[in-house]
Amino acid sequence: MKVIEKIGDMQSLIKDEKLKGNVVGFVPTMGYLHEGHQQLMRKAREECDIVVTSIFVNPLQFGPNEDFDRYPRDERRDKRIADEEQNDVLFFPHVREMYPTNQSVKMTVHRRVNVMCGKSREGHFDGVVTVLAKLFNIVMPDRVYMGMKDAQQVAVVDALIEDYNFPIKLIPVETVREVDQLAKSSRNVYLSPTERKEAPYLYQALLHGKSLIEEGESSPQAVIEAVSYFIKTNTHGKIDYVDVLSYPQLEPLDECGGEMILALAVNFEKARLIDNVLVSIH
Amino acid sequence: MKVIEKIGDMQSLIKDEKLKGNVVGFVPTMGYLHEGHQQLMRKAREECDIVVTSIFVNPLQFGPNEDFDRYPRDERRDKRIADEEQNDVLFFPHVREMYPTNQSVKMTVHRRVNVMCGKSREGHFDGVVTVLAKLFNIVMPDRVYMGMKDAQQVAVVDALIEDYNFPIKLIPVETVREVDQLAKSSRNVYLSPTERKEAPYLYQALLHGKSLIEEGESSPQAVIEAVSYFIKTNTHGKIDYVDVLSYPQLEPLDECGGEMILALAVNFEKARLIDNVLVSIH
Repeated sequence: MKVIEKIGDMQSLIKDEKLKGNVVGFVPTMGYLHEGHQQLMRKAREECDIVVTSIFVNPLQFGPNEDFDRYPRDERRDKRIADEEQNDVLFFPHVREMYPTNQSVKMTVHRRVNVMCGKSREGHFDGVVTVLAKLFNIVMPDRVYMGMKDAQQVAVVDALIEDYNFPIKLIPVETVREVDQLAKSSRNVYLSPTERKEAPYLYQALLHGKSLIEEGESSPQAVIEAVSYFIKTNTHGKIDYVDVLSYPQLEPLDECGGEMILALAVNFEKARLIDNVLVSIH
Repeated sequence: MKVIEKIGDMQSLIKDEKLKGNVVGFVPTMGYLHEGHQQLMRKAREECDIVVTSIFVNPLQFGPNEDFDRYPRDERRDKRIADEEQNDVLFFPHVREMYPTNQSVKMTVHRRVNVMCGKSREGHFDGVVTVLAKLFNIVMPDRVYMGMKDAQQVAVVDALIEDYNFPIKLIPVETVREVDQLAKSSRNVYLSPTERKEAPYLYQALLHGKSLIEEGESSPQAVIEAVSYFIKTNTHGKIDYVDVLSYPQLEPLDECGGEMILALAVNFEKARLIDNVLVSIH
């Protein structure tokens, strides 16, 4: 596995690979790799000739109260994992390489952001699309792999690719779950033993809501209430949001129908957990 | 010459050409082609294997008081010229193909815009970078050709390419001039016979200012005054601006030095003329 730090080196390697007709798969990450990332790498490995993973903790997507400096980093372990997952290239640029100056041209996201986790993270997705637009031009992937755990991020990147005609196919990859179906997350370790037993009910709550819709419940509000009640009766978590929205537009619905996402965020004592399911009614 | 209207068709043609190792040159235009555009096409033809010209009157770069609908169009003549200049492809999309929905992700320009012509065209360059980011992803050029007549546009596109790491080399092409050195422009036909005789003094004024700087004048204000005086004494035009700025940053200077642009816009009865020269002092 090659480790590349310079933008120019990355671009010339990829140009060579493309000349050979190789299909490039890309997994953008902020490092501190876990099983979710590994799932993306494996999928990319199956489907592409060249797999590039990037590790870049992007200062632009951290809010003033979110601690960029304290974001966990483990370069040595990350390199080992990326190598074990048979990445061809690990792109690992410094902040100064990616942002030598402040951007003169800024990108801002105006839809799909004022709902779900975006409500409480103003400007977060502006930083996400900025760095991804840059990484797309640096890695020039044919296919980009992103986890559905962060469904809102997938929806926003879908808009970025559509709006700017990036010649890239976005591949959303299903959330990796524990045996008891709790969505895997590095935050799960912060759960108390009791909370850990309760946490799988979040996904059960989503499945309950999904089956209500599939059985004909047409009111999003009724679904939200049923899911919320299910969470409250089975866990000590405090609900941040439960929402039913169109997908990938993430618009509120008067009535259930079409492609939808049922999503939630719940605060436990020391961990905020998120999860979601897609529902399709035609 | 192929005429392509669909984004997908354009992208797959270019992917094929790139696989063959062909270098792609790109000339983005709003049509109503004139000698300035032809100069760009010829330069691209000399330097690239595949030459693509686009014609797209971009609604996003017109202000509310600038008449998008009345912008001159002559499809038949444009196709003939593009063909004569040995373009391989003319990309000619409809507005609905380029903007099927409003952009969810917006691009805005925060530097290099509140000077020169940008002062009176709020939002204009936001539209320019948006459409060019799209066109860059559709045409995937190795080299893009733009005329120095609109030096501010070149400076803004330079920032776009830098900020987002587009794997593209920007080639600024020198302004095409009449025999008497008046910068060529479709607006020159609106000059009265007297004005047409006076108009070449604009470029003479710029050359005068340039030689002042080269001979050691360090005050931008003194240069601006000398150039303005030269224009006032030799023409009936009304000065919109004369400016000395750093290039390509387009920042005001306390003192002449480094890479600079000396630029002007002058209103005649029925035509607003612009011109500029670069000056380099080290």
